[in-house]
Amino acid sequence: MAKIKVAVLGATGAVGQRFVQLLDNHPWFEVTALTGSDRTVGQVYGEACRWVLDKPMPDYARSMKVVPTEPGLAAAIVFSALPSDQAKAIEPAFAQAGHGVCSNASAYRMDDDVPLLIPEVNPDHTALIKVQQQKRGWSGFIATNPNCTSTGFTIAFRPLLDRFGIKKAFVVSLQALSGAGYPGVPSVDVVDNVIPYIGGEEPKVETEPCKMLGKLNATHVIDAPITISAHTNRVAVIDGHTVCVSLEFDQPIGPQAAAQALLDYEWAAIVRSLPSAPEHVIEVRSEADRPQPRRDRDTGHGMTTVVGRLREDPLFHVKFVVLSHNTIRGAAGGSLLNAELLVAQGIVK
Amino acid sequence: MAKIKVAVLGATGAVGQRFVQLLDNHPWFEVTALTGSDRTVGQVYGEACRWVLDKPMPDYARSMKVVPTEPGLAAAIVFSALPSDQAKAIEPAFAQAGHGVCSNASAYRMDDDVPLLIPEVNPDHTALIKVQQQKRGWSGFIATNPNCTSTGFTIAFRPLLDRFGIKKAFVVSLQALSGAGYPGVPSVDVVDNVIPYIGGEEPKVETEPCKMLGKLNATHVIDAPITISAHTNRVAVIDGHTVCVSLEFDQPIGPQAAAQALLDYEWAAIVRSLPSAPEHVIEVRSEADRPQPRRDRDTGHGMTTVVGRLREDPLFHVKFVVLSHNTIRGAAGGSLLNAELLVAQGIVK
Amino acid sequence: MAKIKVAVLGATGAVGQRFVQLLDNHPWFEVTALTGSDRTVGQVYGEACRWVLDKPMPDYARSMKVVPTEPGLAAAIVFSALPSDQAKAIEPAFAQAGHGVCSNASAYRMDDDVPLLIPEVNPDHTALIKVQQQKRGWSGFIATNPNCTSTGFTIAFRPLLDRFGIKKAFVVSLQALSGAGYPGVPSVDVVDNVIPYIGGEEPKVETEPCKMLGKLNATHVIDAPITISAHTNRVAVIDGHTVCVSLEFDQPIGPQAAAQALLDYEWAAIVRSLPSAPEHVIEVRSEADRPQPRRDRDTGHGMTTVVGRLREDPLFHVKFVVLSHNTIRGAAGGSLLNAELLVAQGIVK
Amino acid sequence: MAKIKVAVLGATGAVGQRFVQLLDNHPWFEVTALTGSDRTVGQVYGEACRWVLDKPMPDYARSMKVVPTEPGLAAAIVFSALPSDQAKAIEPAFAQAGHGVCSNASAYRMDDDVPLLIPEVNPDHTALIKVQQQKRGWSGFIATNPNCTSTGFTIAFRPLLDRFGIKKAFVVSLQALSGAGYPGVPSVDVVDNVIPYIGGEEPKVETEPCKMLGKLNATHVIDAPITISAHTNRVAVIDGHTVCVSLEFDQPIGPQAAAQALLDYEWAAIVRSLPSAPEHVIEVRSEADRPQPRRDRDTGHGMTTVVGRLREDPLFHVKFVVLSHNTIRGAAGGSLLNAELLVAQGIVK
Repeated sequence: MAKIKVAVLGATGAVGQRFVQLLDNHPWFEVTALTGSDRTVGQVYGEACRWVLDKPMPDYARSMKVVPTEPGLAAAIVFSALPSDQAKAIEPAFAQAGHGVCSNASAYRMDDDVPLLIPEVNPDHTALIKVQQQKRGWSGFIATNPNCTSTGFTIAFRPLLDRFGIKKAFVVSLQALSGAGYPGVPSVDVVDNVIPYIGGEEPKVETEPCKMLGKLNATHVIDAPITISAHTNRVAVIDGHTVCVSLEFDQPIGPQAAAQALLDYEWAAIVRSLPSAPEHVIEVRSEADRPQPRRDRDTGHGMTTVVGRLREDPLFHVKFVVLSHNTIRGAAGGSLLNAELLVAQGIVK
Repeated sequence: MAKIKVAVLGATGAVGQRFVQLLDNHPWFEVTALTGSDRTVGQVYGEACRWVLDKPMPDYARSMKVVPTEPGLAAAIVFSALPSDQAKAIEPAFAQAGHGVCSNASAYRMDDDVPLLIPEVNPDHTALIKVQQQKRGWSGFIATNPNCTSTGFTIAFRPLLDRFGIKKAFVVSLQALSGAGYPGVPSVDVVDNVIPYIGGEEPKVETEPCKMLGKLNATHVIDAPITISAHTNRVAVIDGHTVCVSLEFDQPIGPQAAAQALLDYEWAAIVRSLPSAPEHVIEVRSEADRPQPRRDRDTGHGMTTVVGRLREDPLFHVKFVVLSHNTIRGAAGGSLLNAELLVAQGIVK
Repeated sequence: MAKIKVAVLGATGAVGQRFVQLLDNHPWFEVTALTGSDRTVGQVYGEACRWVLDKPMPDYARSMKVVPTEPGLAAAIVFSALPSDQAKAIEPAFAQAGHGVCSNASAYRMDDDVPLLIPEVNPDHTALIKVQQQKRGWSGFIATNPNCTSTGFTIAFRPLLDRFGIKKAFVVSLQALSGAGYPGVPSVDVVDNVIPYIGGEEPKVETEPCKMLGKLNATHVIDAPITISAHTNRVAVIDGHTVCVSLEFDQPIGPQAAAQALLDYEWAAIVRSLPSAPEHVIEVRSEADRPQPRRDRDTGHGMTTVVGRLREDPLFHVKFVVLSHNTIRGAAGGSLLNAELLVAQGIVK
Repeated sequence: MAKIKVAVLGATGAVGQRFVQLLDNHPWFEVTALTGSDRTVGQVYGEACRWVLDKPMPDYARSMKVVPTEPGLAAAIVFSALPSDQAKAIEPAFAQAGHGVCSNASAYRMDDDVPLLIPEVNPDHTALIKVQQQKRGWSGFIATNPNCTSTGFTIAFRPLLDRFGIKKAFVVSLQALSGAGYPGVPSVDVVDNVIPYIGGEEPKVETEPCKMLGKLNATHVIDAPITISAHTNRVAVIDGHTVCVSLEFDQPIGPQAAAQALLDYEWAAIVRSLPSAPEHVIEVRSEADRPQPRRDRDTGHGMTTVVGRLREDPLFHVKFVVLSHNTIRGAAGGSLLNAELLVAQGIVK
């Protein structure tokens, strides 16, 4: 089988680099183009890009020439690592030109006809692509993955919602530095410090999960009726978002029943076959002090959601801690898994 | 006026060092004894103690000889920086021998006849000392200050409770390393990491505030009817506990009303005259990203509680962030302020 | 005595902020102007400036209006916190217009007729100002302080050079983040990491000390004949540069003789009277593990140089560790002390 | 071929854990015993051991029962991760009982008849084992690997010494926290800080390389005539020791010649076939700011030595930076590679 041609938009930034890394030796996809800003266009990627990831730049990318971010690339799928304001302007042009845009940007996530996707959570929401194409007259499409902080706990919510119903959720994040991109957070702001604020983050975290966990009707998603309150904080961690969660279910449920629901859940069969899907969607830890970002973020190559400290909550029913790798599962890896799903569903060929 | 003689029990540990530091040139108190373990007894403090604070050891302490932790010291007040298990055994012997024990340990905090005190919050609870002395036949007494994490937000709760009533509180802490004492948290556990667990902390944080905010009757405190749910986390910060709080009041109240209540509150007059009381009990910050531990912990010499990010909460009514210096206001400084209150009230002479 | 009017050029940056802080309540100087870039001109300083220091912005500065960086300010002395390229263009215009420029920038440090000053090290080098004014036809002047890394060890070298002669020096720095300004070093580059490179730093560290320790003749300084080899590194420390030093003297000298020389040295009397001079120019620590940046950087309000670990060197004669606060002694505080010296010498009136 | 039986002495400590990890699925060795202290003996390893490494404990070890550290184990090779004082007493008993002890402890490293080994550096020094057995009457033996800080730069010295001769070396380390074991360095000592002292480290770093780089005669090693001066520092890095090196050769050599020597060197053929040998013994980086510990420590699975910043030295000839993974190449991995060499040489069968 010939590989499907893909491109990375905004390939020199921090998320773009993760795409480049995760696409190395991908069994289904072949990278045909890396795009960049005016400053980098024309240079080879190995020189244009200040590589910030800990593992070396893949060889395939090193000598590719950076091209402008313009439609018409030889790519059925384009992965968008563009900043949200650029994504707003550029992604529709790509969709119109027939590209399938798998976007990590927030620009279109909440549009009615744009799927906000986590393959394990709402694989059926890809049906919105047809609605989108009809409404907008596009031959391509835009599909998005959620904010890095929403990702982990939304995955954990799926089994709990299905079995018990969820009414209310408190979520407090301790977020890694890589979530702010590069150069991102200045070091003098965060050594021996916490920044209890991340611009624009709390509204995303309070709304995106309800769309993903919602039910699809003919033309849009009816949000799941969960009220979420979020506090988001930046801490001196390189990768891995830790989220403290308290949940009220439709009925009184204890921590053991919740743990069992997480362990028992039958994830959609189509997802289990995707090349980037982890062996375990969720890992439940029983130690008192896990998950921890440095020690657990690489579980399942950064694609597994790690849950721990399941215990009773005096106010709601159950509290626990969720850990998710923010630039793999919560960004480039999530977008890549979405693309794989779209191929498996025959939407991209 | 002659100074009141005081001693520090467990003076070589991290909290003991803070006592030694804060008692330097104290206008009311004179340190007559520093106690230590068998290993250090007989040495001068300057040699017995591995000083871990950032400012130098005060000169007065350097050449004092470390003595055993036994009653009979020439001290009306003894400040206890003992570990909880030692405090359990030793503090009653001091109280029986006539010493006023101002303890930072958790051993007796929740005993019915032991005041758990923050001078600004519940100065009238010192009346329990008489009950305690009668019941236990002591000429001295034990008075305690709360857990370092409870301290800051309980101070912030006082004005809100008095004006609006508080029903429910979610509190999620990002706690500093110094709270674990010395050597405390191993560095390989916390660099590029978060530990989402602190042994024994959550139960304290969920119960102590209700006692402090409760109403005194003849023989004990009737807990304030607030349900608290706590998640406690350790982060790579030297000093200063950050707490994310969501509150449900008896009535729907918005962030501005809450801020106004914090600013308007008339703190007990007797407290304002105490030498260690800060000029402002609470400081309310209006920036989007404050308070931050490194930048705000020293507000009011570490005795001011800093509140910021007051905003609406989608689930409850208001959410905000509280910062408090954990080894000053939340430990030695809190205990010292308690002792000053007891002197001002004439309980210690 | 009326205070001398001063201004801060580039007052909104990290070093500019230190100037603003250190000039608060200065006994000799009154701040009449704070200058900024086009972006900030016209705003009040309290709004124009993103304050990054841990202590609050001084009240005096908060409501001052930021003005353009142009000569003609009502200021006998202007403190320059400008980036080097801007300093290159702008500082001469100020000097020509009659201002005394006390500059932290590197642009003119190595010019023959510009004094590179540490008051304790080479107070007589201010005589170059006359040469400079004649040569350049200026009524004002430029006087500079050295690079933050050179500062501490050059102070320590003065007594050793005078007593023993120094031939060779190895210096390896572990430099704080604040030395890179704001936003400076990205946090993802330095958490759980070391960056063994600081652009342009090593040549400065290898040359500036020789000029400062050199002998003044009629028109310029004859460099001290010391060969210096430097390795410079960035580490995850907020403030305080640590430097490991190995020295070869003109004769074989041991660590005790070196320590004695540091302790005995009679610093120039004129310096001891300056308001920003520390009580002790050098503090010699005897503990095995000091100096440490977090614990020792504030010695003498950040103006004292702390030396420790004096011991024999197998290759040269003596090795030791020097600590100096990089944004106080090594930048704004150093420049301020220079200005005070110039006043005390009658060069600025 | 049947696997060779091996045991790990002191398997529950930080270095012991690395042995357990690196021996997982080893092609030549089979772990038959894990030893521990009285506290852990009798428990299964999965419970006895507080696992501190970032990747999970290998399955094979989880259910092994911890046994006492006593000779007579079914193991041709025992890997010693014992603290030096225990190693002193225990390792000879094992050697006498016929075990080959591959030790990471410093106790016997400098004994005349004990090889101090890095397979790439001095594979012929294993000939000392015969001398040792005759002299001490042992059927087993002790072979040691060097201190973690010495390891990296000694590997880099081998090609330079062979081609140019080395007379003098300055080495200044920025060492990772994991080098201190667990719990090791308290976090309050090292966040926002540097500790410019590591007990006992500098003498090791100044002597061990000379033994390894020395020439073997009949009964002992004649040290290489290199004078080394070391400064050792602890920084807030999890793994990976960074060392700044300045070298004086027998003749004036520049950085390019030195780089070429590192790249050209023909490492002993026998080493290249060992299962734990990295593909590249040394990697030479050309970027201005590499090597960096977080980004380069895992090069060659932590077994490659990374060299960068080769440049002229004003005092000596060349300066550069060396990075080596301290608990892999510098401890357990080094010891394991020694054992593999001994098998390849037929000394262990």
